[in-house]
Amino acid sequence: MPTTPAVFVGPQENPLLVEAVERGGGTVVALADAEAVVVSGGHGDLPELPDSVTWVQLPSAGIESWVAAGVIDASRTWTSAAGAYSHSVAEGAVALLLAGVRGIGRAARLSTWDPETLDGVQSSLRGSTIAIIGAGGIGTAMIPAFAGLGAEVIAVTRRGLPVDGAAQTLPADRVGEVFAAADHVVLAAPATSETKALIGAEQLAALGPQGWLVNIARGSLVDTDALVAALAAGTIAGAALDVTDPEPLPDGHPLWTEPRCIITPHSTNPSVLRVGALAERVTENVRRFAAGEELLGLVDPERGY
Amino acid sequence: MPTTPAVFVGPQENPLLVEAVERGGGTVVALADAEAVVVSGGHGDLPELPDSVTWVQLPSAGIESWVAAGVIDASRTWTSAAGAYSHSVAEGAVALLLAGVRGIGRAARLSTWDPETLDGVQSSLRGSTIAIIGAGGIGTAMIPAFAGLGAEVIAVTRRGLPVDGAAQTLPADRVGEVFAAADHVVLAAPATSETKALIGAEQLAALGPQGWLVNIARGSLVDTDALVAALAAGTIAGAALDVTDPEPLPDGHPLWTEPRCIITPHSTNPSVLRVGALAERVTENVRRFAAGEELLGLVDPERGY
Repeated sequence: MPTTPAVFVGPQENPLLVEAVERGGGTVVALADAEAVVVSGGHGDLPELPDSVTWVQLPSAGIESWVAAGVIDASRTWTSAAGAYSHSVAEGAVALLLAGVRGIGRAARLSTWDPETLDGVQSSLRGSTIAIIGAGGIGTAMIPAFAGLGAEVIAVTRRGLPVDGAAQTLPADRVGEVFAAADHVVLAAPATSETKALIGAEQLAALGPQGWLVNIARGSLVDTDALVAALAAGTIAGAALDVTDPEPLPDGHPLWTEPRCIITPHSTNPSVLRVGALAERVTENVRRFAAGEELLGLVDPERGY
Repeated sequence: MPTTPAVFVGPQENPLLVEAVERGGGTVVALADAEAVVVSGGHGDLPELPDSVTWVQLPSAGIESWVAAGVIDASRTWTSAAGAYSHSVAEGAVALLLAGVRGIGRAARLSTWDPETLDGVQSSLRGSTIAIIGAGGIGTAMIPAFAGLGAEVIAVTRRGLPVDGAAQTLPADRVGEVFAAADHVVLAAPATSETKALIGAEQLAALGPQGWLVNIARGSLVDTDALVAALAAGTIAGAALDVTDPEPLPDGHPLWTEPRCIITPHSTNPSVLRVGALAERVTENVRRFAAGEELLGLVDPERGY
């Protein structure tokens, strides 16, 4: 039978997190009476914790600042928000690809009723194959949405082990195959030396004139000059970019006026959505804490993540 | 065991439909040798059909022009493309709502890197409730996509009988309840005297400041002046319109410059997507014909639809 955890929410007041604790079956109490703490913000700063506190929920996915501040100790359980924000970024990527193929980027710029602007430029994700390069937490969170739209996914992961819901998974060293095999490509891989300028003229040519490129990872994955040239030439159908190289994209850059390009200024993980996602995670972890189940986002105090 | 139907494709040549017939297991033959005909276009005009033809596939959802031309007779089986185009329009509606809540309409108008434009205006479909008013062929085709995005659907149909995948179905005479109950509303109902100006100031106020309105039905369902006022006042979060009243929307109309509004000029069912959808239908019906199964889009020659 679940208990009713006594949870302190702080240091800042946060009604949404209070609600989230209560929805998970907890009671919000003063710090001195708490067995668990939900940290509502800050960068490494924490009040002195009484010994009664056995679990601390941190508010961010990366916890470098708390590690640096030396507050993480092995005497309690610590959880981060790792993975909690994946769905928001994944939804942003799906929105970008769908807006691209359905011509909504072009339509949004109209100021006169001109259906011909969209003539011949629309395609459908239904029956298409979408490659997700970097199918980690964010990339895999896109798969149910693409499935619901009738599209198939090729996932690319470091080792190429099967990914739930993907029709096929390829290891990173076979990423070159996906540009011809897929109709569209979504970049969700970390910025590393291996992924730097992963997308150049050759990959864009293989993607082809019906293909859309979506980048919600880091600008460095794409050779911007090659992309500008491919868009101008119609080598690919379009690009939807949440990240660019250089970033911020300077005023007057050709991508700003390219009709085949949609740009969101690094905004697929906005604070307004992070709050909701954190609340959802807090509710779930309070529920698990009450039921004695394993918590999400467990931190290894030795490793610091 | 399926047969190999002998199918004539005409009167216009159409390689995509030829391919579709073959993918369905048929052989493309001259009209004189055909047992089935796939009509590739036209508006009521048909070549003289030999007696060997027992099935005719028409290329459109509405077949008024063929009925008017008097070519539909009860001596053969006739099928229309009714329902074949639902997925394309449904995808367009999902794309519009997603572009709206994720701020892509606003972002597409940027010509400078200004993340603050999207501050506070984004929301997520995940965990939201979406009312589909008019959950017929097009409306129900949206449900799997919304499910894949983690949203729940309230369907409104004429009689309110349960709709697959919807959390709740309401009959048309209870449509007034959905504006407060749902986070977002998609209009997919036919234009009738009952649906004229269905959306006015009262409904928009009930929808509320986080709500998006999508209209892919007909412009007459929305009181445009009330919508303009609600958008300007922030009564609702935004509107994404494929259809308007008046239509075409005149130059200089306030909706063209309203940042909360996305307009696609009656383009959720473009010809480029219709061709693919018709091909998909032809493949499926040829397969069914070969297997002796019931065809999709059967026309009642007496009723003429």
